[in-house]
Amino acid sequence: MGQTIPEKFNDLFEKRVFASLATLMPDGSPQVTPIWIDYDGQYVLVNTAVGRQKDKNLQHDPRVCVMLLDPENPYRYLELRGRVAERTLDGADQHINKMAGKYLGQEVYPFGRPGEVRVIFKIAVEKVSSLG
Amino acid sequence: MGQTIPEKFNDLFEKRVFASLATLMPDGSPQVTPIWIDYDGQYVLVNTAVGRQKDKNLQHDPRVCVMLLDPENPYRYLELRGRVAERTLDGADQHINKMAGKYLGQEVYPFGRPGEVRVIFKIAVEKVSSLG
Repeated sequence: MGQTIPEKFNDLFEKRVFASLATLMPDGSPQVTPIWIDYDGQYVLVNTAVGRQKDKNLQHDPRVCVMLLDPENPYRYLELRGRVAERTLDGADQHINKMAGKYLGQEVYPFGRPGEVRVIFKIAVEKVSSLG
Repeated sequence: MGQTIPEKFNDLFEKRVFASLATLMPDGSPQVTPIWIDYDGQYVLVNTAVGRQKDKNLQHDPRVCVMLLDPENPYRYLELRGRVAERTLDGADQHINKMAGKYLGQEVYPFGRPGEVRVIFKIAVEKVSSLG
């Protein structure tokens, strides 16, 4: 249950890395979008808005792959395969503000739309592959 | 049959963009790796080595997603969903050398292993999504 991410890759979660998140469409085909990414030491955290394709896909099939490419060395990367362990609205607003701090240097997430509800997916990592 | 990629995104194929390629594992779960990418005006071209996970996955299920993030603007990206139209060894050695020119500024691909056989996957784009 749950693979640990090697500490030598911690920097990829500290830098402003735009991770590639692959989810599965309802027909089983893959979809990839760039995302802000976080890691709490146990789960990889993905914060999105309720009702988006990612949200729909992850509720339909919990299997994901997250790939982080080192922006300073494209021949160094981390690939994490796993599945959603939890979907929660709790703390999602605070968390997206934290992410805005990391990625934008702003205290409050500036891209929210009227009525948007944020949601966190906690992803349990089952397989770690890496290069570099 | 086949979507055209908007010309405004041609630069993403001219720059040294490391695309994220999502394929499907035999159990249907997604896998993502960073790849060198090419576009011949009709097909998106992926060059890999025979026997690699990508090669196995694409022969098992032709459905893919390729995402190109602008290295100069992470809020600009192109997402291409489609499927393998052709798998061929023809011209694959010349093509990987061309890619080495683009990505490394070298005339000959330097990372080949003894006995390695290169293969090109020609991907027909069925759906284009983009931001920016």
